[in-house]
Amino acid sequence: MANPTAAMLVIGDEILSGRTRDANMHHLAGELTQVGIDLKEVRIVSDDRAAIIGAVKALSAGYDTVITSGGIGPTHDDITADCIAAAFDAHIDVRDDARALLQAHYDRQGVEFNTARQRMARIPDGAKLIENPVSIAPGFTIGNVHVMAGVPSVFQAMVASVLPTLTGGQPLLSQTLRIDRGEGEIAGPLSELAADFPDLSIGSYPFQRNGSYGANIVIRGSDGARVDAAMTRLSALFAQ
Amino acid sequence: MANPTAAMLVIGDEILSGRTRDANMHHLAGELTQVGIDLKEVRIVSDDRAAIIGAVKALSAGYDTVITSGGIGPTHDDITADCIAAAFDAHIDVRDDARALLQAHYDRQGVEFNTARQRMARIPDGAKLIENPVSIAPGFTIGNVHVMAGVPSVFQAMVASVLPTLTGGQPLLSQTLRIDRGEGEIAGPLSELAADFPDLSIGSYPFQRNGSYGANIVIRGSDGARVDAAMTRLSALFAQ
Repeated sequence: MANPTAAMLVIGDEILSGRTRDANMHHLAGELTQVGIDLKEVRIVSDDRAAIIGAVKALSAGYDTVITSGGIGPTHDDITADCIAAAFDAHIDVRDDARALLQAHYDRQGVEFNTARQRMARIPDGAKLIENPVSIAPGFTIGNVHVMAGVPSVFQAMVASVLPTLTGGQPLLSQTLRIDRGEGEIAGPLSELAADFPDLSIGSYPFQRNGSYGANIVIRGSDGARVDAAMTRLSALFAQ
Repeated sequence: MANPTAAMLVIGDEILSGRTRDANMHHLAGELTQVGIDLKEVRIVSDDRAAIIGAVKALSAGYDTVITSGGIGPTHDDITADCIAAAFDAHIDVRDDARALLQAHYDRQGVEFNTARQRMARIPDGAKLIENPVSIAPGFTIGNVHVMAGVPSVFQAMVASVLPTLTGGQPLLSQTLRIDRGEGEIAGPLSELAADFPDLSIGSYPFQRNGSYGANIVIRGSDGARVDAAMTRLSALFAQ
C-alpha cells in the first residue's frame, strides 16, 4: 500500500526576498520521512491573501495532510489564520479556549494581554488547537491542514505534538554510495539497475569537488532486504 | 508600475526526503531582488512526470518568468527536459547544437561521448540554449521558462547568464531595525505605521534569543526616501 502523502505551505515574504533561508522545510522533511509519510510538494508564497487561500485549497485537495508554517503572530502582516478560515469557509474570531491559554500566560508574566496579543487567539470555528509549549500562542488543525508558527523552535515543537496524531506508513529506508566518477560514466549501468528494482527509488545526486566529478547514489525503499540487495549490486558494479 | 514577477520550480526528491537542504532558492531570491524582479512563489516537487508538467504549466501561466532547478543530468532520474517539452507540446530529441558543444568538450577530455552523456543534449525544438561555463551541458529557455541544473555552482552560473536578459524593475530597497521587545508589545504602533505607508511593505520577523523575545522589522520599497521616512518614524516609536 502506498504511504500517506503530505504537502507543506511556507508563508513568508522574508524567504522569497532572500532575506532569510528557510529551515522549517528541511526539518519537516526529515521528520515525515522517519514516520513513512511522503512529502510530495512544498510551496512558498508571499504574505498575500489570494496566494495563501489558493495554495491551501489546492494542497488540501491534493494530499492527505498539509502543514503550514508562518504568519500566525500578533502583527498586521500575520494573515495566515484568517486566510485558512476563508479557504475552509469557516467563521473566525478570538476564541475562548485560545484566549484563556494566552490570558493565563500573560497574567503569570504580569504583561498586558492587549489587542495585538489577542489576535493570536483568532481561531476558526471547528478547528482543534495545536499546543505550543515554547511561547503558548497555539496553532490549529482544520480539516487536513495543520497551521503552525514560522519561528523554528515553535514550529518544531508543534510538529512534535502533531506528528503522533498522523497515520504513518512504511518508513523510508535509504542507503547512499558515493562514487567518484562523473554521472555520464555511471548512468548506463545505473539505469539498468533501476529497471531491475522498480520497487525502489534510485537517485543520482552529482557533485563537483576539487575540480573532479562524482555522484551520491541514494537507494530508497521500505523493504530493507531489497535496499540491501540493490546496494550490493551497485557496489559490485562500481567497485573502484 | 508593478515589478515583473517570477516563480521558481525546484525538482528533486532529495530535498523532499530531507536528505539535502536546498541552496538554489536562497541564491535566486537574492539575485532577483537586486534587479527588481519579485519572486512570488516557489514550488518543490518530486521527480514525477505529472507533478513537474502540472507545476510548470501553472507557474508559466501565472508569472512573467519561471526558473527551474534540477533534473537535467545524464541519469535515468533526470526527466526535467522531457517534462518541460511535454508542458509546451514541443518535440524533444538530441539537438545538433547541444551535441556539438558536448562532443567538443568530451573530445578535449579524451572521454567517450556515450549514450548517457548524449541525454544531456536533449533540448526541445524552439528552445534557446543557456550557457554552462562550469560543466558545459547547457540549460535552455522555452517560452518564459528557464531550465537550469541543480548542482549549485552550475545553477549559479546559469542564473548569471540569464539574469541580464530579463527585464528588471525597481530594485527593492530594504532597511531592518532590530527591536528587543515581544511582537505583542509593538504590533499596535507597527500596524499604524504600515497604514501610513501603504506603498511600503513592513514585515515583522520575530525571534527568541536567550529566552527573551524580539523582532526584526524590515521595511521594503522601491523609493529610498519613503523607506528612510518610515525607518525614521519606526526608530522614534521604539526608541529604547
